[in-house]
Amino acid sequence: MDQLTPLPVPPQPLRVALLGFGTVGASVARILVERPELASRLRLTHVFNRDVARKRAEWVPSSVVWTDRADDLFAAEPDVFVEVIGGVEPAAGWVSRALTQGAHVVTANKMLLAAKAPELLALAARHGAQLRFEAAVGGGVPLIHGVREGLAGDNLLKVAGILNGTSNYVLSRMGTSDESMASVLSAARDLGYAEADPSADVDGDDAGAKLVVLAGIAFQRYLRLADIPRRSIRPISAADFRYAKGIGCTIRQIALVEVRGEGFHAFVGPALVPLGSSFGRNAGANNVVTLFGRYGGESSFSGAGAGGPATGVAVVSDLLGLAHRTADGGEAWAPASIVSPPARPYYLRFVVRDQPGILASIAAALARQGINLDAVLQEPDYPKDALPFVITVEPCEEHRLLSALEEISSGTYHAQPPLALPLLLGV
Amino acid sequence: MDQLTPLPVPPQPLRVALLGFGTVGASVARILVERPELASRLRLTHVFNRDVARKRAEWVPSSVVWTDRADDLFAAEPDVFVEVIGGVEPAAGWVSRALTQGAHVVTANKMLLAAKAPELLALAARHGAQLRFEAAVGGGVPLIHGVREGLAGDNLLKVAGILNGTSNYVLSRMGTSDESMASVLSAARDLGYAEADPSADVDGDDAGAKLVVLAGIAFQRYLRLADIPRRSIRPISAADFRYAKGIGCTIRQIALVEVRGEGFHAFVGPALVPLGSSFGRNAGANNVVTLFGRYGGESSFSGAGAGGPATGVAVVSDLLGLAHRTADGGEAWAPASIVSPPARPYYLRFVVRDQPGILASIAAALARQGINLDAVLQEPDYPKDALPFVITVEPCEEHRLLSALEEISSGTYHAQPPLALPLLLGV
Repeated sequence: MDQLTPLPVPPQPLRVALLGFGTVGASVARILVERPELASRLRLTHVFNRDVARKRAEWVPSSVVWTDRADDLFAAEPDVFVEVIGGVEPAAGWVSRALTQGAHVVTANKMLLAAKAPELLALAARHGAQLRFEAAVGGGVPLIHGVREGLAGDNLLKVAGILNGTSNYVLSRMGTSDESMASVLSAARDLGYAEADPSADVDGDDAGAKLVVLAGIAFQRYLRLADIPRRSIRPISAADFRYAKGIGCTIRQIALVEVRGEGFHAFVGPALVPLGSSFGRNAGANNVVTLFGRYGGESSFSGAGAGGPATGVAVVSDLLGLAHRTADGGEAWAPASIVSPPARPYYLRFVVRDQPGILASIAAALARQGINLDAVLQEPDYPKDALPFVITVEPCEEHRLLSALEEISSGTYHAQPPLALPLLLGV
Repeated sequence: MDQLTPLPVPPQPLRVALLGFGTVGASVARILVERPELASRLRLTHVFNRDVARKRAEWVPSSVVWTDRADDLFAAEPDVFVEVIGGVEPAAGWVSRALTQGAHVVTANKMLLAAKAPELLALAARHGAQLRFEAAVGGGVPLIHGVREGLAGDNLLKVAGILNGTSNYVLSRMGTSDESMASVLSAARDLGYAEADPSADVDGDDAGAKLVVLAGIAFQRYLRLADIPRRSIRPISAADFRYAKGIGCTIRQIALVEVRGEGFHAFVGPALVPLGSSFGRNAGANNVVTLFGRYGGESSFSGAGAGGPATGVAVVSDLLGLAHRTADGGEAWAPASIVSPPARPYYLRFVVRDQPGILASIAAALARQGINLDAVLQEPDYPKDALPFVITVEPCEEHRLLSALEEISSGTYHAQPPLALPLLLGV
């Protein structure tokens, strides 16, 4: 028989198994079902969920196998696993197992990536599989592709963003309504914008995990979440917004990472940002990310940060990427060290039981660290036993500020612990 | 001899030839030279430019061949041609020739793509080559990758943007300075923001060509530039900004394309947008693009729209994409038809020689087309022989508005032709 050039085999659709059928998993399934033009490239074959009977949806084609045993999925050897169960375990074990059997994995799980991205990326490379995660940061914002591919030609120097929708909802609402943190958080819970325990959102773990993923993409470096300083937005009060407004600023939960010599400065927490900046103007649960490159300057992305449909779009985009391509660059994230921030201005807010000499003593403590005052702001009409006032200081090293604050905190006149926020004027 | 599994061959760097060494070409070369970590993937081998002796740059490695004969580049058979000469010819001929000999092409040339993308994409597919053009729209904004890959999972319904930096510079400056169009255009020329003949920018051809490219990416459909209605920003006056501000809006050159049944509505020209919207807040030469998807809602991208370094980043990103991957989806843009816009509100500005009965006659003409007035705005202190006033109308079909305006234009009281701008409140 003659040796014939084989005809090109029409590509088969990728067989997709869903690990998890919560909001995001259901959105992925819905997009696959509602967009018939995708059927030649992607076919949903299995859905795993605990207690799966209660999840079964009529609109999913009857060919799909529903199961509450993850083993069934591994035995079926799908081409791709979509991991949307969240949390580090059992997700990590299942993703490792999928990659080890050579299947691709698409995940929306920032906590998994923040904990284990380097190992999982290495495992994928060893087994010729791909690990994709456009959905893990800023659901509806096509950040990962934009940064990894569209800005690959640049040398990125800094990434800063609003990465947690709940915190942004709370702070942007406080910024316009003069409500207290407690009352806004409670309203956010009632509206479904915040969970019963909002700690991961307001204390910075959620944004921190996303920052780990973004830093991996932007710099191919792995920052450990535990090494990234995270500060809660809980101490922010209505008075802080009034004082911030007085100097043309508002307050947002900012996540940022920037190149500093051989290391990186990284930070998650409340910061003052100019009212007119893209961060200051960002309201509701939207995400915004700004990247600063050596050549291209500043680029920004914004959109819905979370929600089933937006995150489902990101998962399906990754699935289509797998269906179209044979390789994805095989990236690896090398370890990176966290270093101190550059000198920068700060907003210091004190709440004191008023008595003579307080300002003089604070100013003296700052002066001993070589820190120059920029302005002292005090609004009228606060009670004398819990009087808030604000000092802004010129750019200074963080360790000097912390030393001064340590000395200042020993004063007996404080009604609340002092609050120091970075003043990010360049974002 | 035993049949051994061959060792993987270390990939050779792609040999890159530059067609053109203007601002963008020089930026591409500079990034390749300044980022030594790219050397294992990309190697600049040839630079073509007319009158090349005057272009030769000392910082380019001596191994690079400089020539003013394009034939030398084709004879050298590089892996990729970077086309940054601009204009339709001779670029089209050279890009076709490069693709035909199986080389990939990276281009920043929106006019070339607007004129010939379908043929060039087909030619690339036939010869197993790729045509990439991240740099052709919004230089520093990673739109193409973000839309094509990051939002591939969505069903996009609408794309709207500020795509021309010169027009945005002119309009955003008029919006804050109360200057006339003529004086701002002249200042923009002095500052290098506008060319001696700014027609392509202010009359909409530049933004229109970029819109053709964006529509191709977002919808895989080819709109002909000649079919896209383009309107100049030249008639916009300082009075228009004052009136717009009175209704919470400002004026920007907007390019938009949206799905309407089986066809597309497309438009380039000045429009009223809310002061607080991402378009209204966009100042200077920055670009902003907003995409609306069926599932993910709204996503926005912004950044430097042009300039050598930002555009150079986009070109190098495309080069890296070629170096990393074997396939790019092989897309094709099918022809598409342009249909009328949805009913929408309009801003109508008249400049008249004042006399009794003008408003009544205009209102009657609008009423005959079933168009409802929303508001009549007239500021004091204008001369009676060139009195501007504004009527805003409720959402109406464009053809009815045009009929009414035709009747109104026949009035003998006009000191200037009436101006109608769409009022885009949803952007």
